[in-house]
Amino acid sequence: MLEKIRRFVIEHGLFSPGEKVIVGVSGGPDSLCLLHILCRLRADLDLKLHVAHLNHKIRGLAAEEDAAFVEKVAKEWGIPCTIEARDVPALAREKSMSLEEAARYARYKFLAEVAIREEAKTIAVGHNADDQVETVVMHWVRGSGLAGLRGMLPRSRLIVGGEEYDLWLVRPLLEISRAEIEAYCREHGLTPRFDLSNLDTTYFRNRLRHELIPYLETFNPRFREVVRRSARLFADDYDFLRRQVEACWHEVVECEEEKGIVFSLSRWLTLHPAMQRGTIREAISRMRRGLRDIGWEHVERARKAVLERRAGVKVTLPQGLVLATGYGIFFIGEEGFAPHEDLPLITEEIALAIPGQTRITESGWKAEASIAPLSQLPNSWDANPDPWQAFLDWRKIKAPVKLRPRQPGDRFKPLGLKGGTKSLHEFMIDEKIPQYLRDKWPILVDREKILWVVGYHISEEALVTPETEEVLIVRVHKDFPS
Amino acid sequence: MLEKIRRFVIEHGLFSPGEKVIVGVSGGPDSLCLLHILCRLRADLDLKLHVAHLNHKIRGLAAEEDAAFVEKVAKEWGIPCTIEARDVPALAREKSMSLEEAARYARYKFLAEVAIREEAKTIAVGHNADDQVETVVMHWVRGSGLAGLRGMLPRSRLIVGGEEYDLWLVRPLLEISRAEIEAYCREHGLTPRFDLSNLDTTYFRNRLRHELIPYLETFNPRFREVVRRSARLFADDYDFLRRQVEACWHEVVECEEEKGIVFSLSRWLTLHPAMQRGTIREAISRMRRGLRDIGWEHVERARKAVLERRAGVKVTLPQGLVLATGYGIFFIGEEGFAPHEDLPLITEEIALAIPGQTRITESGWKAEASIAPLSQLPNSWDANPDPWQAFLDWRKIKAPVKLRPRQPGDRFKPLGLKGGTKSLHEFMIDEKIPQYLRDKWPILVDREKILWVVGYHISEEALVTPETEEVLIVRVHKDFPS
Repeated sequence: MLEKIRRFVIEHGLFSPGEKVIVGVSGGPDSLCLLHILCRLRADLDLKLHVAHLNHKIRGLAAEEDAAFVEKVAKEWGIPCTIEARDVPALAREKSMSLEEAARYARYKFLAEVAIREEAKTIAVGHNADDQVETVVMHWVRGSGLAGLRGMLPRSRLIVGGEEYDLWLVRPLLEISRAEIEAYCREHGLTPRFDLSNLDTTYFRNRLRHELIPYLETFNPRFREVVRRSARLFADDYDFLRRQVEACWHEVVECEEEKGIVFSLSRWLTLHPAMQRGTIREAISRMRRGLRDIGWEHVERARKAVLERRAGVKVTLPQGLVLATGYGIFFIGEEGFAPHEDLPLITEEIALAIPGQTRITESGWKAEASIAPLSQLPNSWDANPDPWQAFLDWRKIKAPVKLRPRQPGDRFKPLGLKGGTKSLHEFMIDEKIPQYLRDKWPILVDREKILWVVGYHISEEALVTPETEEVLIVRVHKDFPS
Repeated sequence: MLEKIRRFVIEHGLFSPGEKVIVGVSGGPDSLCLLHILCRLRADLDLKLHVAHLNHKIRGLAAEEDAAFVEKVAKEWGIPCTIEARDVPALAREKSMSLEEAARYARYKFLAEVAIREEAKTIAVGHNADDQVETVVMHWVRGSGLAGLRGMLPRSRLIVGGEEYDLWLVRPLLEISRAEIEAYCREHGLTPRFDLSNLDTTYFRNRLRHELIPYLETFNPRFREVVRRSARLFADDYDFLRRQVEACWHEVVECEEEKGIVFSLSRWLTLHPAMQRGTIREAISRMRRGLRDIGWEHVERARKAVLERRAGVKVTLPQGLVLATGYGIFFIGEEGFAPHEDLPLITEEIALAIPGQTRITESGWKAEASIAPLSQLPNSWDANPDPWQAFLDWRKIKAPVKLRPRQPGDRFKPLGLKGGTKSLHEFMIDEKIPQYLRDKWPILVDREKILWVVGYHISEEALVTPETEEVLIVRVHKDFPS
């Protein structure tokens, strides 16, 4: 068994020579066996071991005894050891978690803390091949894509309560059966404590272990082996699909901001369905790093919504995320994130009909222009609260008036800067216009100057004053689908 | 339900307008419902229907009654109909198949025959959503990769007994549950016969249907739905992986012959494990078109063998195929197929040490040359049975002697052509040297002429005669690893 584990460790690159490894030890057979084996391999693999044990405060005296047992073993085997206690029942109440969830949360959080304190990068735990089968069967029964059917990985990032740590969680016993572990313990005179993990597993998992899997074995005596093997294949298939997603990511993603990821609809639609799902899943996982299970139902619902190609569709995703469709794009982001398609973006200049209506065809917005004597403006014009409307002194304007995207070197005299000029570039940064929008942001200009950065300030040079005779009124708006 | 099926038919492109469709009708609820629905859709989808029913001769009178029932229904509904009988029990005995296998074989063979006779390209069968769940669970329990977990496809090539037909098998009811079908039959006054398919399913499948799946539903009430949905995802994932295999195929395959497919080892090793498996699976499936299930255990064993990078390893694959490794290559082919690495291939000319040993470094072979008086040759030299050895008249040779690949315009006078010359190109074709080997095949030449096409004939112009004084003996050989 030692040799089998050594090969597994090397094949999957679980440890780096010279590194310190935190070993989570409950005192049960799995973790005791793990610790024993790592002790035997430590010289060869050049590892420094450190035992970590958490008393979950669930089982009173028995838990104290577990802790004492682990401490004693660590001392006897000459391994430094951190033993702590957390009030898991209190945590469960406080966070409205099941006792099992709270125990899991507290345990991994503790392991992460020990690793950080001890400046270790790797945490080893005792999950065995039967745990793996149970995990996979659980995912299968609950409904899962490849991500679930690949089960636990030999090596993965530690994620606790939605937070991803810069730590590795490794499982050296992942291909060793429970029976082999028990035999190993007997053979080496190890007397494990009754495994807490058997207690705090849920009823669901217990039924799986003691009823469903043995029953499935009556259909195929090699069921366990078969599940484990296919998990390995699925892990590779999944990994390959993810790499392909990464490879096409920059082709289909228009921009990736903290608050949301915007996809080009036309480019995304050319993807294979498997990649369409993959990119949606990837976007969710980038927005919510720690999310352990991204339901494929969410993903599929989101995908179907995009395939409808209708703007204005919104799909709720896990943890406060939404997918929403716009014109030519869709995005996955925080509820409230506004994609640029809700903006009058422009890529070529368009002459403004004055008076009249001008369509910004590419984004579906319109610009309406009219001219009125100052005296005919409503009294409230000066307090105009609509950022999409501007009042300009018609006499200060040199026709033709156009809408266009910015050009290198654009400068203007924004109102409020007391006559100073500012580069448009700086202005956009100061106004926090997102970078990916800046090249398409509409600017109202005349023959000589910038009149209005639409949605923001007008220029000092076109300001309406008491001397103004005629006023150019420009309103940019969109009839959004209801 | 009609609308749901219509959408399914359109989404998956099951039928082309105007085409004739053979409908397999057992008389049971599934196929009766299918026929009824296709009748209702036929005008809209522009289909010509043709009913096909096979009496399996398993259930005596009841089977005769099934046939009469289907005939009557077809007549009433105005659909042309082919009804035939096959002695399935006799077929089972003859081919040593289980009764179920034989029934399946006979049924699909019959459907294919009817389709060909009727010049139809499409055969519709009544597999429903519950059949789909059972199929997927069966694959899952027996151990399967994506290929199995995707279940039955809405549309696939008809394969019977290992033979792939130019016919489509379509399953319009694949997302309709058994309960929905029964309700539909009641609602439309259809009185199906007891479904034969319930009888001839195996004990395994019956246990699956009546015990395992209901039991799994106690773990997740939505189990059936979840399995069906994930089957659809897996079908897409599988399809994507296959396309990627096709995309990398020409990069890693050196040649594809009727008898075998040769891979470049170095290029194949750069593939992702998922693609390594995919290319092996693809090679098996190209060599054995009709093979329904390619065991992933076979594939994985083959992959591991190649990863060892040792030449001379052989792995048995299904149906008389082998994978064997050579130097710089491996191949999947018929038992007995020889890959070119067992040959002294050459890409640049090498001067021959005479006497002495010359290494053909790129393929690991050696050429040994010596000169001996004719009188000292063993008596048996003339009957030389070794194609890798040549005896040449030293006086007829103009040094230097070299080994080289062929050159355009090469001609020579092969022994046996009675002094005529022949283009080397033609010679190679006549001698059936595979095309992909011809450019690297070693040719022994002197300053003026071809002396020997290694492994084949020497030239008339270097023939040893009774007048020969000294003989150049060249032997090309390889010390194969044992």
